Amino acid sequence: MKNLLSMKDLTIDEISAILDRAAMLKRYGIRALPQKYMVSNLFFEPSTRTKMSFEVAERKLGLETIPFEANSSSAVKGETLYDTLRTLEEIGLDAVVIRHPEEGYYEDLVGKMNMAIINGGDGSGQHPTQSLLDLFTIKETLGGFKGLNVLIAGDISHSRVAKSNADALVKLGANVKFLCPPEWAGDFPSVSDWDEVIYTSDVVMLLRVQHERHDGKMRFTKEEYHEKYGLTVEREREMKPGSIIMHPAPVNRDVEIAGSLVECSRSMIYKQVENGVYIRAAILETILQKEELAWERSSRVHMF
Amino acid sequence: MKNLLSMKDLTIDEISAILDRAAMLKRYGIRALPQKYMVSNLFFEPSTRTKMSFEVAERKLGLETIPFEANSSSAVKGETLYDTLRTLEEIGLDAVVIRHPEEGYYEDLVGKMNMAIINGGDGSGQHPTQSLLDLFTIKETLGGFKGLNVLIAGDISHSRVAKSNADALVKLGANVKFLCPPEWAGDFPSVSDWDEVIYTSDVVMLLRVQHERHDGKMRFTKEEYHEKYGLTVEREREMKPGSIIMHPAPVNRDVEIAGSLVECSRSMIYKQVENGVYIRAAILETILQKEELAWERSSRVHMF
Amino acid sequence: MKNLLSMKDLTIDEISAILDRAAMLKRYGIRALPQKYMVSNLFFEPSTRTKMSFEVAERKLGLETIPFEANSSSAVKGETLYDTLRTLEEIGLDAVVIRHPEEGYYEDLVGKMNMAIINGGDGSGQHPTQSLLDLFTIKETLGGFKGLNVLIAGDISHSRVAKSNADALVKLGANVKFLCPPEWAGDFPSVSDWDEVIYTSDVVMLLRVQHERHDGKMRFTKEEYHEKYGLTVEREREMKPGSIIMHPAPVNRDVEIAGSLVECSRSMIYKQVENGVYIRAAILETILQKEELAWERSSRVHMF
Repeated sequence: MKNLLSMKDLTIDEISAILDRAAMLKRYGIRALPQKYMVSNLFFEPSTRTKMSFEVAERKLGLETIPFEANSSSAVKGETLYDTLRTLEEIGLDAVVIRHPEEGYYEDLVGKMNMAIINGGDGSGQHPTQSLLDLFTIKETLGGFKGLNVLIAGDISHSRVAKSNADALVKLGANVKFLCPPEWAGDFPSVSDWDEVIYTSDVVMLLRVQHERHDGKMRFTKEEYHEKYGLTVEREREMKPGSIIMHPAPVNRDVEIAGSLVECSRSMIYKQVENGVYIRAAILETILQKEELAWERSSRVHMF
Repeated sequence: MKNLLSMKDLTIDEISAILDRAAMLKRYGIRALPQKYMVSNLFFEPSTRTKMSFEVAERKLGLETIPFEANSSSAVKGETLYDTLRTLEEIGLDAVVIRHPEEGYYEDLVGKMNMAIINGGDGSGQHPTQSLLDLFTIKETLGGFKGLNVLIAGDISHSRVAKSNADALVKLGANVKFLCPPEWAGDFPSVSDWDEVIYTSDVVMLLRVQHERHDGKMRFTKEEYHEKYGLTVEREREMKPGSIIMHPAPVNRDVEIAGSLVECSRSMIYKQVENGVYIRAAILETILQKEELAWERSSRVHMF
Repeated sequence: MKNLLSMKDLTIDEISAILDRAAMLKRYGIRALPQKYMVSNLFFEPSTRTKMSFEVAERKLGLETIPFEANSSSAVKGETLYDTLRTLEEIGLDAVVIRHPEEGYYEDLVGKMNMAIINGGDGSGQHPTQSLLDLFTIKETLGGFKGLNVLIAGDISHSRVAKSNADALVKLGANVKFLCPPEWAGDFPSVSDWDEVIYTSDVVMLLRVQHERHDGKMRFTKEEYHEKYGLTVEREREMKPGSIIMHPAPVNRDVEIAGSLVECSRSMIYKQVENGVYIRAAILETILQKEELAWERSSRVHMF
């Protein structure tokens, strides 16, 4: 694995290897790599959790993280993304994590540089590290994916999480359904009635209502959305035993999920955050150390 | 001490322990802690000196400082401060320093998380690390607090420094007076004539005129303020022998203090900056290492 | 060398010593200094490459880099640059790199503090680290400076690169010519016809058209500028054998240079970026370690 751009590029074996390595890191701790590497987190869109999760993983791996500020970068002087990245490569970076508002921004870059690229989210496209931490959390909690009923509820068409996860979960043998207002379904077949899905879902994965992408043009209030498409306190009571609630966060409390459910016993929301650090450390290790990586040899030892 | 939120929470013994520890660090140097800790400085308001002072103290202690940018954080996506902090806790941070425009922002957070919180200033509320470095500088220069006459002059009602310091100084046995335009006194009894206080004060502590909190509604020009309420060159000549000038900075030269006095022999302004690093290192040590802290056992050895 | 402010301050011997040291670092690698130093990069204007180049050099030297954000600094509270720097000195910094929009900002500061200052660009003034990396790249590629024909083309009057480089190149024995629209020549004698210079130049050094400094008042379109003053594909074909193309970047593709030439075999553009890290490491070493510097003793071993 040279870059991590989209869940579509990963085979089942590659996914398994990353999840296994993250489980090892969670059990035994993240340790500094033997070599010094330089990386940078290029976030052209706001982010707290993804960026800080990478920052923590990088420090635990002993990497040097070179700060980058999109607002004061040469991008504001009209430099192309390719030229910015070539510059960073010549300055000596080994890998960059990029979040960028343009879907598929990386298509112009792939194959043109040696520096590795990890996609931290591209517009309404993919968000593979989020997807892998979601898979990790499902596997850790429910033991596997085959035959699981996964419901993804919310703003499907704008969500890179929905797309990344659906791709991967289906590949891994889960049944994925979508619930959302019809106008937010995009190309996905969806339902809009919780009664069709709440009793049978093993995983209820909620998506954030992205107010900032709708320009105030939503046809319902927050209260109406919560009542019709959110996970209310009443609906949670109908969930099957052992089923779990997930959300990529940040959460809009009392919109997509009742505020009182955020830290309920079914909720994996903060466990997802915790697991994100292990997943990102596993990915950085894999990409920076490539073939010479010792753990790949031992990746037959599955942790779950 | 689990958190440091307000000077009101600290006993005289706790204050003494921190001042003593800072004196040790100033004499023998700040050394890296035996364990690795992760911290972050969450500044939701502009700051140079407080933030950079913490950054330097953190590096001297060997901590890993995870960068946080308020402008591009999830707070702009409507996440609550509680959810942001829970996220940072799950990501693996051991402590955060927070500056926030809302007075008492920490009241909703205390007791709900394991991660330690150090208050770096809350609106017009408290600023305990500034207060402790002021106390340190007074004790270092004048030997103690009992019976000292301390004058605090300036924008009392908007100043977290005034409130933090008044609380602590009175507790430690000093006499505190205030000088300011009547409309800036808030609940404090104040004088507005320098002649009543200039001859007897051991410490003249000036506060910054916070133009940004007055929206241009000040009833005097800078020159008028300086003439009536500032420390002019003439007034400094009337100060008693051995008395000192303090200011939390940044300074408005020729407003609250004559520019030529900023680095005069009485002025402790840059000594306060220097001492701030030792105080912050002492606080971080205390909070991160809690009870197991070796120096607490030896805290009977007072340095002053 | 205590500070690095302007190419005018450097003797030929000092320039040679820095170029030689950078060549050593490029050959043998940059290693951590034996002592810990604290530095900060104070960029009051946008920058990717200069700032990140310093950040990488600093980490390779094992320095601690204290983050500074101009937008949220005390400068916005009206603090003078002198007071900000005195504060950073008291906080414990050993050196600062400053980029500032005001030409000659450093004149008020020199001689007033112990902390070293490295000029990272002052308004339309000087940019000595860029100049030194340009000299390094010329010497590395062409072997020296004596008798070289160097053409500097573009926005001369606004360019700190043009001024820094012209000063140094003439001092080192090169012939420097300028090509630009007459209104951009400032005090420099210039030509505006490529035919006068393209056949004889050993170095064609292009400057960025600084749209942001012209407020949209340019009298030609990008296409017109490219046609008349840019390095077109046709003009590159007329360049003499072995001659090189340079540009401080960021590049406006198809304005000052045809996009297809940015990575052509004559182009040193990305080599300049790479060399910048070695030059900045050499400067930081020299300034932080001053006289006690071991390599100065061995600087007679010239690498070129």
